Amino acid sequence: MLKNTLCNIGLFKDCGDSFFTNLAAGAKSHKYNKGKILFLHGDKGDNFFYVQSGWVKLFRETLDGTQAVVDIFTTGHIFGDTAIFEDGIYPYSAEIVESSEIITLPIAPLKEEIANNSKFAFSMLGSMAKYRRQQDREIEHRSIQNASQRIGCFLLRLLQQNEDGQVQIHLPYDKMLVASRLGMQPETFSRALKKLQNETGIRVKGSTITMDDCNQLVRYSCAACTSEFPCKDISSAAE
Amino acid sequence: MLKNTLCNIGLFKDCGDSFFTNLAAGAKSHKYNKGKILFLHGDKGDNFFYVQSGWVKLFRETLDGTQAVVDIFTTGHIFGDTAIFEDGIYPYSAEIVESSEIITLPIAPLKEEIANNSKFAFSMLGSMAKYRRQQDREIEHRSIQNASQRIGCFLLRLLQQNEDGQVQIHLPYDKMLVASRLGMQPETFSRALKKLQNETGIRVKGSTITMDDCNQLVRYSCAACTSEFPCKDISSAAE
Repeated sequence: MLKNTLCNIGLFKDCGDSFFTNLAAGAKSHKYNKGKILFLHGDKGDNFFYVQSGWVKLFRETLDGTQAVVDIFTTGHIFGDTAIFEDGIYPYSAEIVESSEIITLPIAPLKEEIANNSKFAFSMLGSMAKYRRQQDREIEHRSIQNASQRIGCFLLRLLQQNEDGQVQIHLPYDKMLVASRLGMQPETFSRALKKLQNETGIRVKGSTITMDDCNQLVRYSCAACTSEFPCKDISSAAE
Repeated sequence: MLKNTLCNIGLFKDCGDSFFTNLAAGAKSHKYNKGKILFLHGDKGDNFFYVQSGWVKLFRETLDGTQAVVDIFTTGHIFGDTAIFEDGIYPYSAEIVESSEIITLPIAPLKEEIANNSKFAFSMLGSMAKYRRQQDREIEHRSIQNASQRIGCFLLRLLQQNEDGQVQIHLPYDKMLVASRLGMQPETFSRALKKLQNETGIRVKGSTITMDDCNQLVRYSCAACTSEFPCKDISSAAE
């Protein structure tokens, strides 16, 4: 069963049967509740992880406990794999932020496959280049977008990019976590969300956001971005 | 001559002789003055580049011409190589920001070597993972450091990490460019630099910065960072 799931992961499309056999032999699927810590920054990285459903936060902490959110991942994403390039140590901590089903996988077969299968190594490089571009965009937005535009961009990325007419978005996790993901203080986030409603006519009720037409939001946020909407580099899975 | 330079690039340590021969056959070394555009975002990426000396800015622009600085590189850095994973298109523009000597290299042998030499592919992945961690840190700092702390961090990264006693740093490029690199408006940068002087006792005269002891700066900036000083993940070259 697990082997079938693994065979369908886009990133592994060029991997051979023995890779999947070795991977599946050490694989375990778990359901976790919100709040569960999967590993801590500095732990030995013997495993990597595949998100089958739910949401996982990667973060780091300063000595005085201030938390910096590195990223928040959902279905189809792989994480923990970069321990391979960090002397076998996780460079961040991971916490479940909404009930999730996670497949834990042994990291050794992954490392071996990179070393022996250059097509797969090429796929890994492509996937990392894609992630790098997303981070470039994140850094760019923190330079040239205001807080409201950044919230707008976050919402647009939750849209099916071909939706037309009135659309509804449900925030996938807690509003305060959205604020942390965007690197904003809660007060800044609340003020900026209010401003976004005034500027673009979106309506917010709890964690549901309704807009009559996404174009106003696109005009508002994407004006201060170097990419065009719909963003070609959006990836919601390990491709 | 050029082949010798290429053989000494750390990233290429596992590459074979035929790779260096092919690379050197298409290599050209150029001296450029400040302001020269090497390529534009969206150009066809037939070459990648090695910085032999000087400083190069990678950037992107919005439709209305607002510029976002992606990174600024110096001696030992490679750029333009990610076009391989972007359908052969440069994902950013590149401009010379201080007189530089740049080696232009054909991208085809690089792509071939990744496909045929898994040790090299592994090195490329390691190098990308390192860059990714640097970007993670950049995003983190924009969330949890104030502007003065971020300037302090920028200065600390220019230090030889084992320097003791009184130290002098020369800003490698224009102050306003340092501001753009840090994603700050010029006014924000000036105010934050003044505050940094008050808080840590550093002295700024033109582009020279003097401090009696770097520990005060370390205490000030690194308190709001999840890494410890000296930063293990600092890389000044293509390793």
